[in-house]
Amino acid sequence: MQFTLHHTDTHTAARAGTLRTDHGEIPTPIFMPVGTLGTVKGVHQHELRQDVGARIILGNTYHLYLRPGTEVLEAAGGLHQFMAWDGPILTDSGGYQVFSLAHRRKITEEGATFASHIDGSKHLFSPESSLGIQRSIGADIVMAFDECPPYPSERRYAENSMHLTHRWLERCVAFMDASAPLYGHSQALFPIVQGSSYDDLRRVSAEFIAGQDQPGNAIGGLSVGEPIEDMYRITALCCEILPASKPRYLMGVGTPANILECISRGVDMFDCVLPSRNARHGVLYTRQGIINIKNARWRTDYSVLDPAPAAAPTSRTHTRAYLHHLFRVNELLGPQIATLHNLAFYLGLVTEARERILDGSFGAWKDQILPDLERRL
Amino acid sequence: MQFTLHHTDTHTAARAGTLRTDHGEIPTPIFMPVGTLGTVKGVHQHELRQDVGARIILGNTYHLYLRPGTEVLEAAGGLHQFMAWDGPILTDSGGYQVFSLAHRRKITEEGATFASHIDGSKHLFSPESSLGIQRSIGADIVMAFDECPPYPSERRYAENSMHLTHRWLERCVAFMDASAPLYGHSQALFPIVQGSSYDDLRRVSAEFIAGQDQPGNAIGGLSVGEPIEDMYRITALCCEILPASKPRYLMGVGTPANILECISRGVDMFDCVLPSRNARHGVLYTRQGIINIKNARWRTDYSVLDPAPAAAPTSRTHTRAYLHHLFRVNELLGPQIATLHNLAFYLGLVTEARERILDGSFGAWKDQILPDLERRL
Repeated sequence: MQFTLHHTDTHTAARAGTLRTDHGEIPTPIFMPVGTLGTVKGVHQHELRQDVGARIILGNTYHLYLRPGTEVLEAAGGLHQFMAWDGPILTDSGGYQVFSLAHRRKITEEGATFASHIDGSKHLFSPESSLGIQRSIGADIVMAFDECPPYPSERRYAENSMHLTHRWLERCVAFMDASAPLYGHSQALFPIVQGSSYDDLRRVSAEFIAGQDQPGNAIGGLSVGEPIEDMYRITALCCEILPASKPRYLMGVGTPANILECISRGVDMFDCVLPSRNARHGVLYTRQGIINIKNARWRTDYSVLDPAPAAAPTSRTHTRAYLHHLFRVNELLGPQIATLHNLAFYLGLVTEARERILDGSFGAWKDQILPDLERRL
Repeated sequence: MQFTLHHTDTHTAARAGTLRTDHGEIPTPIFMPVGTLGTVKGVHQHELRQDVGARIILGNTYHLYLRPGTEVLEAAGGLHQFMAWDGPILTDSGGYQVFSLAHRRKITEEGATFASHIDGSKHLFSPESSLGIQRSIGADIVMAFDECPPYPSERRYAENSMHLTHRWLERCVAFMDASAPLYGHSQALFPIVQGSSYDDLRRVSAEFIAGQDQPGNAIGGLSVGEPIEDMYRITALCCEILPASKPRYLMGVGTPANILECISRGVDMFDCVLPSRNARHGVLYTRQGIINIKNARWRTDYSVLDPAPAAAPTSRTHTRAYLHHLFRVNELLGPQIATLHNLAFYLGLVTEARERILDGSFGAWKDQILPDLERRL
């Protein structure tokens, strides 16, 4: 994996780059749609590529490990083959879902034991087993197994947790060095900065992570309930320490405004369930503001969802009245159209951010559009 | 509306024709996907056209009347505009849903009163109001308001019901003559043969319907639980009486085998929820037989769903193992892929039937493929 930094904004820390993987190039900054179980909910793979403009998607190790399982994925030749997606894939380590979804969690030096949220069966995730599963999945970018402490966390807990994450990282690196990819394409490991909301811990962690000299770096443990100023401050602090020559991935963030603010602080990669999950509840993002399509005010609004050239084709075809109807009668096509809309909107936003970074107008553009992005229509 | 009959099979009563509407030509025999509420569940309109090969779709008057309502549809400029489907549309009369879905039904000479299955509100459907709603919807083909008697029905009930349907038909014809289409394209009325499972009543009804000299004719009241031989015998009997110069539509039928058998008896048009509803439950039709994709035997079957050139593009891309996984984890994409598959299969089947009729090989082809179509894999 190779990262080329084309330009860093003079007024902000925003960057435009290109990340090269064996499954294709990723222009950065980029938003990565979440495809938890080998599918971005309600979206065909060819729609991801053509209508959304997705350049890389996410898979969730915890979910894919439980269903369909590594045996099925390996026999298929990995997740790319299994789901017929030939673009880049990133997988998380499974740690976050163990802590947020699974039952009877217990963390030890070895790793995390848990009971499946589906059938209660017992499992252990460790640095080695998480990366082993990610080898079976075959993602282009694999994430280090970490502990994501809840917010708020006491300082002692946050510090111990951070050191555990660092020790686990060394085992992740050793495992990656000692093992090989299964499907002929390379897999890059991204370590994750932790340290909760404590600036000094975040500095220690960012320096430790930077010192591992992996192909890219991630910031974890944010967007877990902390005040927005904390998220922005810690993101900026981490970006200042993480090397400029490598991509920076802010995990699980966020709203369109969050993404622009964190791009301006030096982040290159984002993922979040927000655009797809909100779409399924009828909440649409537009440049004019946020639409709740279930509201009666859209019942006879025959304007198209979004006339912008960057909008999904179905957003330029269908009216708000039609989408309102589909949601009101609980038809599958409603979430389908809304998901295409929000994902295309997110991809359009980062695409324009990149153009604005390259032509020097990013900061002014961001400040101009931010108020509209957060308005409720 | 204009119907051209190109060829009638010499060994069977199968016909190949072309039906011309203001929204495009329909090759016959044809299968019409059901789009109850202004959407074929889980399928984008452009997929209907390009991936399924749909040439005409159905809307349900009962459902569209209740939601979104004629006011919303009229303000949109009719259902074509509302749902952004520029191909032909056929609407039923609403009668069937009144009898199968609504509450507190009461039939009088005037029409049928009922309570909405959604909110219990009271409504009256009559020949005039049903056709009035179908004027608001703006379908290219509108159906006469009839009573569809349950199976079995006593002879006296069936006979009285048939005569009521005939009297209602005269009011439908009068209403159509006295009113005009709302959106600049023409609307053709199809009357419906009734008479339950009584051959003599069916003959009387078919002659009465034929005598109305409308642009096309339908056979109703079948596929309601009667033995399959009754369906085939009555279909043949009606087709012998209904004029050869006009399209014949068999309502609510059926399985792939039913469709081939009824094509061979002289039917030109079909609709059924079977392919789309079964798809949502993981039941797929193929030329080799019927697949229940939820069965464990497909878990590691990495062959594509259907390699046939006529199959939906997603059926030629995705494996049985992948679709099995999607259904097992209850992902939206499962029903989406399965629905495209079944609808494309049905459209491929009638398309090939038409080619076989035109080249004279229909009967032999039908007899050859029938056993496979009904086999469970």
